[in-house]
Amino acid sequence: MSLPAPRNVRPDRRSVSDLGAVLPETAEVREDGHLFVGGVDMVELAGREGTALYVYDEADLRSRMHAYRDAFESRSARLPAGFDVAYAGKAFLNRAMVRLVDEEGLCLDVSGGGELARALDAGLAPARLVAHGNNKTPLEIEEAVSAGAGRIVVDSPIELERIAEAAERNNVVQDVLLRITPGVVVDTNDYITTGTEDSKFGFTLRDDIAFDGICQALDTPGVRLVGLHMHVGSQVLDIAPYAKAVDVVAGLMARVAAERGVALGQLDVGGGLGIAYQAEDEPSSIDSFVGLVVDSVERSCSERGLCVPRIVVEPGRSIAGPAGITLYHVGTIKELPGIRTFVDVDGGMSDNIRTALYHADYECAIASKAASPRTCVVTVAGKHCESGDVVALDAPLQEPEVGDVLVMFGTGAYCNSMASNYNGQPRPAIAFVADGEARIVTRRETYADLMARDAG
Amino acid sequence: MSLPAPRNVRPDRRSVSDLGAVLPETAEVREDGHLFVGGVDMVELAGREGTALYVYDEADLRSRMHAYRDAFESRSARLPAGFDVAYAGKAFLNRAMVRLVDEEGLCLDVSGGGELARALDAGLAPARLVAHGNNKTPLEIEEAVSAGAGRIVVDSPIELERIAEAAERNNVVQDVLLRITPGVVVDTNDYITTGTEDSKFGFTLRDDIAFDGICQALDTPGVRLVGLHMHVGSQVLDIAPYAKAVDVVAGLMARVAAERGVALGQLDVGGGLGIAYQAEDEPSSIDSFVGLVVDSVERSCSERGLCVPRIVVEPGRSIAGPAGITLYHVGTIKELPGIRTFVDVDGGMSDNIRTALYHADYECAIASKAASPRTCVVTVAGKHCESGDVVALDAPLQEPEVGDVLVMFGTGAYCNSMASNYNGQPRPAIAFVADGEARIVTRRETYADLMARDAG
Repeated sequence: MSLPAPRNVRPDRRSVSDLGAVLPETAEVREDGHLFVGGVDMVELAGREGTALYVYDEADLRSRMHAYRDAFESRSARLPAGFDVAYAGKAFLNRAMVRLVDEEGLCLDVSGGGELARALDAGLAPARLVAHGNNKTPLEIEEAVSAGAGRIVVDSPIELERIAEAAERNNVVQDVLLRITPGVVVDTNDYITTGTEDSKFGFTLRDDIAFDGICQALDTPGVRLVGLHMHVGSQVLDIAPYAKAVDVVAGLMARVAAERGVALGQLDVGGGLGIAYQAEDEPSSIDSFVGLVVDSVERSCSERGLCVPRIVVEPGRSIAGPAGITLYHVGTIKELPGIRTFVDVDGGMSDNIRTALYHADYECAIASKAASPRTCVVTVAGKHCESGDVVALDAPLQEPEVGDVLVMFGTGAYCNSMASNYNGQPRPAIAFVADGEARIVTRRETYADLMARDAG
Repeated sequence: MSLPAPRNVRPDRRSVSDLGAVLPETAEVREDGHLFVGGVDMVELAGREGTALYVYDEADLRSRMHAYRDAFESRSARLPAGFDVAYAGKAFLNRAMVRLVDEEGLCLDVSGGGELARALDAGLAPARLVAHGNNKTPLEIEEAVSAGAGRIVVDSPIELERIAEAAERNNVVQDVLLRITPGVVVDTNDYITTGTEDSKFGFTLRDDIAFDGICQALDTPGVRLVGLHMHVGSQVLDIAPYAKAVDVVAGLMARVAAERGVALGQLDVGGGLGIAYQAEDEPSSIDSFVGLVVDSVERSCSERGLCVPRIVVEPGRSIAGPAGITLYHVGTIKELPGIRTFVDVDGGMSDNIRTALYHADYECAIASKAASPRTCVVTVAGKHCESGDVVALDAPLQEPEVGDVLVMFGTGAYCNSMASNYNGQPRPAIAFVADGEARIVTRRETYADLMARDAG
C-alpha cells in the first residue's frame, strides 16, 4: 500500500498555545482565535501573499543566535581562546538571513559555491566564513580562497593539495580546519548521521589516516592548520555523544602536540543540536548544549595537559528550524471512513521533502482556529502527483474546512533549502515577520522563472 | 550508522555494452573506450559543458514515443474509438521536451500550473493537454479551463464544482475524466503506489463514492464526463494488475451504462510502466504493456456488452527514464578498507533525490573506460553536506580515478523534475544529443539565478 498504516494517534486536545518548544517565540493566539507570529495575523498574511508561504519569526531567529552567544559568553572565563558561533547556512539561507547573521555577529558556514556567493553578495565579511563540503570542486575552492574565506574545512588529502594550489595562485596562506570522523554513533535518522567511520566525510582515525592528514596539513605550504573539526550528526536529541567525540578529537590533538610539537588552537564541534518537531520532543536547550561542549572540551583537554582551544559550533537547525513555519491553504478534504482523512494543501513535497525523505513528523494547526483543541487526526497531503507526497502523517488538527489556512510548525530548516519545482510548482515566497510587520525577503517564483533557462 | 551496511555486490565484469535495457538507445562504446550517446563523446561533452550535466538521447526519446504509438496502431482494428498516448510531463519537462511531444503527435499530461504554462509557452495545442493533480488550486483550474485544456482529470467532488464554475466563467463546456482508485495493489515502492484505497487520489469505489461522483459529473452543467481514469502505480514491473484494475473500472462503466444509460467513451489507464534501472531488471516491453491493456479493456468490456472505449495511456518514466543519463566528474575518492569506497561526484541529491528518497538503484560507468569490465564496487556519493547524499550504493564500476567522467544511467525521469538548490548548488544544464551534435536545451543555473528572488 501507499502509505504506512494509519497510526493510532489520539486527537490531541491541546490547543496551539500548549505546543511549547514547537512554536516560534512570538507565536500567540489572539482573542479571535487567530494565530499571530511577530504580531502578524497568519490568516491575513496567507490571504495577502498567497500560499504556500514560508514565514520566519525574526525575533526568534535573533533570540536563538543570541542564546548561542550568551551561552558561550557566560562561560567566557573558561574560554581563554574564545569561541565562534557559525550559523550553518545549509539549513536556510537567503540574503535576509545572511544580514541577520551579520548583524548578530555570528560566523557563517557555507557549503558549496552558491552559499559562498550568497554570503559575499549580502556583504558578510569573508573572514567570518567557514567553507564546508566533502567534495568541493576545484572552482569552489578557488572561489573560497580568492574571496578570503576565514577557514576552509578540509575533507580529504586531495582537497588539501587543491587548497594549497589555490593559496599559491592567490598569494595567501589559507587557514584550514581538518575534519575528523570520530567514529561516534548518534541515535538519529540513518541518513543524517555523519560521525561514524562509514562516512564520506573527513579523515577517519583508523590506520592513522587522520593523524597522517594532520601531518600533511602541517607540512603543506600555503595552508595553516588552525584546528580540527568534528560533526556527530543532525537532529541530535541525546547530546551525551558529543562528550565522547570531543574526547576522541582531544586525544588526537594531544598526539599532535606530543609528536609534532604543535598546539592546535581550535576545536570545531560541528552542529547537530536537535529541535522539537513534536510537542513531546525534549531537545536539550542551547545553553545545556554549549555547557556540555565547554565542559567536555575543558575536561578532555585538561586531562591531557592541553590548553582549552577556541571552540567553534555550527548550529543550523536549532537556529532556523523552530523559527520557521509554512502556511498553506486547504484545497480539498478526502474522508476515507475507517482508513484516514486526507487534508490536501497547496504545496507538499516540493516545499517540504523532509516527511517523505526522513519520515519527519510535524505539528500543525488551523490558523483561524488556533484557540480550539485539535480534535481530529488527519494526514496532510500535498498537491503533487505522488502518493508519498505527505507533509504530516496522522497529525492532530482542529476540524478542517476547505479554505482554511493550515500552519505547519518547525519547517524553518531544510525545507526551503531542499525545495524543488516538482510538477512545475513555483517555489514559495519567504516572509520575515516582526513587530507587527511582514516583509517579503524572497519573492515567490513565477511560471516565467521556471522557463527562464530553457532555450528556444 | 549512516548508510545501510555494504551489500555483498560482486564486481560486475560486464562492460557497458552489455547493460542492455539500462542504456540509451544510441549508446555505443567506440575504439578508444569512450562512451558515445547520440554520436557524441560523453567525455568530451562533460569537459566542454561542465558537470553535473543531464544528457538525453533524442533518438531514444522519439523511439519510445513511437513505440507507444506503434503498439496501438498495430492494434487499431480493435480500437474503433481510437487511442491517445499522453506523455506524463511530471517525469521530465522542458521546452525541448514539449516540442518533441508535439512533433511526435502525442498528448501531454500536465500536473500543476507550471507544467501547463510550459506546454502552452512551447506551443502545444491546448486540446492535447490532460490536466492532472489531486489538489489543483482554483487558479490552476481557471488556467486550464481558460486555456482550453482538452481534458481535466477530476480528483474530488469539490474540483468538479470548481471546474464547472470556471467553465461557466469562460463560457465553455469542459471535457473531464473522473479518476477512480481501483483498489488494486501493485508490487512497487510504497511511496509511488497510487491505486489502493488508502490514497489521496481520486474517487474510491467504497460506499458508492465513485458512482456518486460519476452521477455528480453527469449532472453538472458546464462539464462533460467523457470517461474514467485509473492509475495503479509507478515503476511497475509486473503488469498483471493492470488487467485487474481495468476490470474493476469496466465494471463501473457497465453500471453507469445500466443505471444512467450513458456509455462513457474513454478509459484512461494511467501510466506506471517500469524500466530497467539495474542490468537484471526485466520490465515489460512497451508493446507487451499496450497489448495487455488493449486485451484487458477489450475482454472486460466485451464481457459486459460494452463497446471498446478510446484508450488513453500516460507513460512518463518509460519514455524519459532510460533516454536520460547524468554526467559527473569524480572529485575525490575515499577508500575505507573493509568498509567501502566512496567515489564523490560534483552533484548528488540536488540533481538526483531518488536514491535517498526511494532507495533507487542505478548502474554507472566511467565514460572513458566504457570498454573495460567494472571490477570495483563503490558507493557514488554526492557533494552535499549529508550522509544520505548517495547516488548509487555499492555499485559496480571500472577503477575510478579523480577527474574521470562518471555516467549514471537511467536518470531521465524524476531527477531533473525534483532537482533542488540544496547547499546552494546550481541545477545542471540539460543537453539533447543526436546525430553527432549536442545542443543545450536548458542552460545551467548560475549563482545569480539563485539570488534573483531575494529582496534588497
